[in-house]
Amino acid sequence: MLGKMMDQPLLISNLIAHAARYHGATEVVSVETAGGIERADWSTLERNARRLASALGRLGLQPEDRCATIAWNNRRHVEIYFGVAGAGHVCHTINPRLHPEQLIFIVNHAEDRVLFFDATFLPAVAKLKAQFKTVAHYVLMGPRDEAAAAMLDGLLFYDELLETGDAGYAWPQFDETRASSLCYTSGTTGNPKGVLYTHRSTMLHTLAGNQPDGLAISAKDTVLPVVPMFHVNAWGVPYIAAANGAKLILPGPGLDGESLVKLIDGEAVTLALGVPTIWMGLLGALEKTGSKAKSLVRTVVGGSALPPSMIPAFRDKYGVELIHAWGMTETSPLGTLNQLLQKHDALSDEAKAAIRLGQGRPPYGVELRIIDEAGHILPHDGKTQGELQIRGHWIVDTYFKSDKSALTVDGWFDTGDVATIDADGYMIIRDRSKDIIKSGGEWISTVELENIAIGHPAVANAAAIAARHPKWDERPVLVVLKAQGAEVSEKDLLDFYDGKVASWQVPDKVIFVDALPLGGTGKVIKAKLREDFGHVLLQDEEA
Amino acid sequence: MLGKMMDQPLLISNLIAHAARYHGATEVVSVETAGGIERADWSTLERNARRLASALGRLGLQPEDRCATIAWNNRRHVEIYFGVAGAGHVCHTINPRLHPEQLIFIVNHAEDRVLFFDATFLPAVAKLKAQFKTVAHYVLMGPRDEAAAAMLDGLLFYDELLETGDAGYAWPQFDETRASSLCYTSGTTGNPKGVLYTHRSTMLHTLAGNQPDGLAISAKDTVLPVVPMFHVNAWGVPYIAAANGAKLILPGPGLDGESLVKLIDGEAVTLALGVPTIWMGLLGALEKTGSKAKSLVRTVVGGSALPPSMIPAFRDKYGVELIHAWGMTETSPLGTLNQLLQKHDALSDEAKAAIRLGQGRPPYGVELRIIDEAGHILPHDGKTQGELQIRGHWIVDTYFKSDKSALTVDGWFDTGDVATIDADGYMIIRDRSKDIIKSGGEWISTVELENIAIGHPAVANAAAIAARHPKWDERPVLVVLKAQGAEVSEKDLLDFYDGKVASWQVPDKVIFVDALPLGGTGKVIKAKLREDFGHVLLQDEEA
Repeated sequence: MLGKMMDQPLLISNLIAHAARYHGATEVVSVETAGGIERADWSTLERNARRLASALGRLGLQPEDRCATIAWNNRRHVEIYFGVAGAGHVCHTINPRLHPEQLIFIVNHAEDRVLFFDATFLPAVAKLKAQFKTVAHYVLMGPRDEAAAAMLDGLLFYDELLETGDAGYAWPQFDETRASSLCYTSGTTGNPKGVLYTHRSTMLHTLAGNQPDGLAISAKDTVLPVVPMFHVNAWGVPYIAAANGAKLILPGPGLDGESLVKLIDGEAVTLALGVPTIWMGLLGALEKTGSKAKSLVRTVVGGSALPPSMIPAFRDKYGVELIHAWGMTETSPLGTLNQLLQKHDALSDEAKAAIRLGQGRPPYGVELRIIDEAGHILPHDGKTQGELQIRGHWIVDTYFKSDKSALTVDGWFDTGDVATIDADGYMIIRDRSKDIIKSGGEWISTVELENIAIGHPAVANAAAIAARHPKWDERPVLVVLKAQGAEVSEKDLLDFYDGKVASWQVPDKVIFVDALPLGGTGKVIKAKLREDFGHVLLQDEEA
Repeated sequence: MLGKMMDQPLLISNLIAHAARYHGATEVVSVETAGGIERADWSTLERNARRLASALGRLGLQPEDRCATIAWNNRRHVEIYFGVAGAGHVCHTINPRLHPEQLIFIVNHAEDRVLFFDATFLPAVAKLKAQFKTVAHYVLMGPRDEAAAAMLDGLLFYDELLETGDAGYAWPQFDETRASSLCYTSGTTGNPKGVLYTHRSTMLHTLAGNQPDGLAISAKDTVLPVVPMFHVNAWGVPYIAAANGAKLILPGPGLDGESLVKLIDGEAVTLALGVPTIWMGLLGALEKTGSKAKSLVRTVVGGSALPPSMIPAFRDKYGVELIHAWGMTETSPLGTLNQLLQKHDALSDEAKAAIRLGQGRPPYGVELRIIDEAGHILPHDGKTQGELQIRGHWIVDTYFKSDKSALTVDGWFDTGDVATIDADGYMIIRDRSKDIIKSGGEWISTVELENIAIGHPAVANAAAIAARHPKWDERPVLVVLKAQGAEVSEKDLLDFYDGKVASWQVPDKVIFVDALPLGGTGKVIKAKLREDFGHVLLQDEEA
């Protein structure tokens, strides 16, 4: 048919070009790794990103070559996000907290050609260098430093590398389905798997994820992404901030509560994003310093379950709206975000908070469903639990270098979570599907049992696991670490469940332990507990 | 490269499917053409859109066949938007106020196969039917009506047509660059030209146009598009409302102030969109009825220049934020929208209003530039005037059935406006480029001269035109319609410009007339005035 609209690819470089063109003087403030605050603006970042893109070309990088980062949230890291992807290479962000074995696996699997890193990580990089098989260029993110140069042969310095780049470099145009960035999942079993985002998936995530009921970042906002830039694209914040010309505050390495209070008050931050433990630290520091966090309007919380006390804690004392969001590495990450509907207007604060504790509803661009073990689609009634599956414009299809689809035969990604969804699409994660207890055909959420146990004053931490059972297949067993100096009996703890769950959901047994096995991110390793205690109900039967 | 993200086309049907899935019970309220208010919801609209899509297939429609509408803003019109495009056909919205000759030209040029229309337009359609060469099916948007059936042979009725559709119809998947809708420009010279939007351009307009500094429509909003659905996709509101699950209020044929006040108060509208004349009517009706429009938070104004008094009128008495936006049929339409930046926070209300009188800045997705007559790019200094050009994801490339690009050689669309752009991208339209006065190499804005003249109490309306001049090439002449019963001399009027513009910009002459020639949309036809009065300064010289 004759007639058409302009055909322009959705490229990540468009975003920073837009920021430079229309928000060039808007500040990007960065806490330096060495300490101190550096002030730049979007215009500077864009020019630096172009110089970097040019310099990488001069190093001989080819389209889709991977450039890794091991770095804090800072100005140079943002430039690398845009410069690497804008040039057509792939920005591979690495979690510095990974075990060295995993780090080596990831760098070699990704075949990273360049490794950018902050000074903090120089000793670790120098130590592992011999095992990185493909890295041709090591770049310290800062000015020349002779002591550092002495620690690693052939070390390049970011600020010098930029000098070799051409400030007249023009962003190349290419197909929007080209890969832009790479992030590995921190799988608890097997090797990490890489999710290879494309320019298109990132751009659609940027636009659809920032609708008014989404992250809702505006040019009037001052945004503090505490969520690390190595953690699923910092939830998309660098892209969204550029697209909308927000002032960006990058906290560098200091993520303790007092550093954040200082930054929030000093820069008049309006929106901050991070995981619950960060906000626990912030709330403590606000209390201690007496700051009222006057500028702060909203915090976005994701990454793990939200403690119920956190919503009123922010609301009542600081007037801050806490927004719960959910996503995964495989979902770019935005899957759901919890904003209320018009019909909730009349509810009390408590009733609103109860809804907002859940993971929220999907924006346009993703769909959710829950299915049972036979693959039947389950109703969205807010009660029925099922395996949570997702599909949409920014959801993984095939893991990096995998030769088979990561999806179900009908094209959905299985999240590994068990959830309920209500008629309005509000989703609540009930458990990991490998953890949930299947008792006589009914499912029992270990998360719910643990939340109740942790509410008991004598309990420091607790994990509910499925123990094998001759009649019910599985029954819940609670593994408990007592609070220091506290005493509590098995009976007292089980009585504590009275009225809180249905009687058939109460654990069959409590096992007291001196320590719970914790993984790298502080989560209890339930597989280990099932190995140790999965048989205890069989023994009881046999005894 | 191995690894990828899900590949899903950006299709308009996705939007209404999302609305039905996650906002199914959210209301769509519609004023019926026959009077009375009808209440439906997104779930009903989506089911009806699918039944319509199915029914059109059974009528034998092929992909990209055009289905025209001549209709008010109502529920059936929204269903046609989604059902026609969702099925892969093209929804061609026609302005019912067009001259019959233009209407015939447009229907035949588009080769419309189906014509949907509201009962209001039955007499006109019956009269023109013989001249519509391609229309195979005439569909009255309502239930069966025997009197209507008698007026037009073979007339179909929308509600009956839906009955022939399959409610189990599934939205087809196809390439996102397929055409979705068609709108003709109301060119004052030559034949109207069609802009053929695609699914992709519409979807990107929907997502990028609804960022927090854009239309910012949320699920908490109740949105009243007074802007007609035949007018450039109703500024994208039906799509954006579906994508975000907003409550939608469709005003039907009654666009007078009192009808709107009733609707705004009755439905607790939070956001309304329309042209300045609509808001003049609304302000009058608010005054008359004593309504405070309590629910109303924002109005978006576009389509023609904003009277300066309107911002404080809404702000001071009703607490309503007025947002100025600019666009064209060729730009889907969103080109700019006027939201302030963080740095404007400290300004007074008056200083803010002064900025907001301009057309605003572009969202991510479009870029603006101004050029001089030689094609040189001009600075964005807020002072230099140049021809305004635009490019982006939702800007026309080639008009419908045209065999040549509508763009400059370097790929920009020339808007035909003269504008300034400041360093932050705030754009102000100074004139139409064919109207601006080129005096001794300097440009004089006719809009500015007219605004001053209209500020004089004795002036009802005024037009500034370029008159040919032997020395300066062109000089301004003011054509004035006096207010009823008022008297004013040429000298008084020219003195009125003192201190308001530079002395060389003051008109050379004032011509008093009994009437100004007005076009179909109420705008003064300046070409006619130039024809009548373009020589007056030459005569003076000769005299």
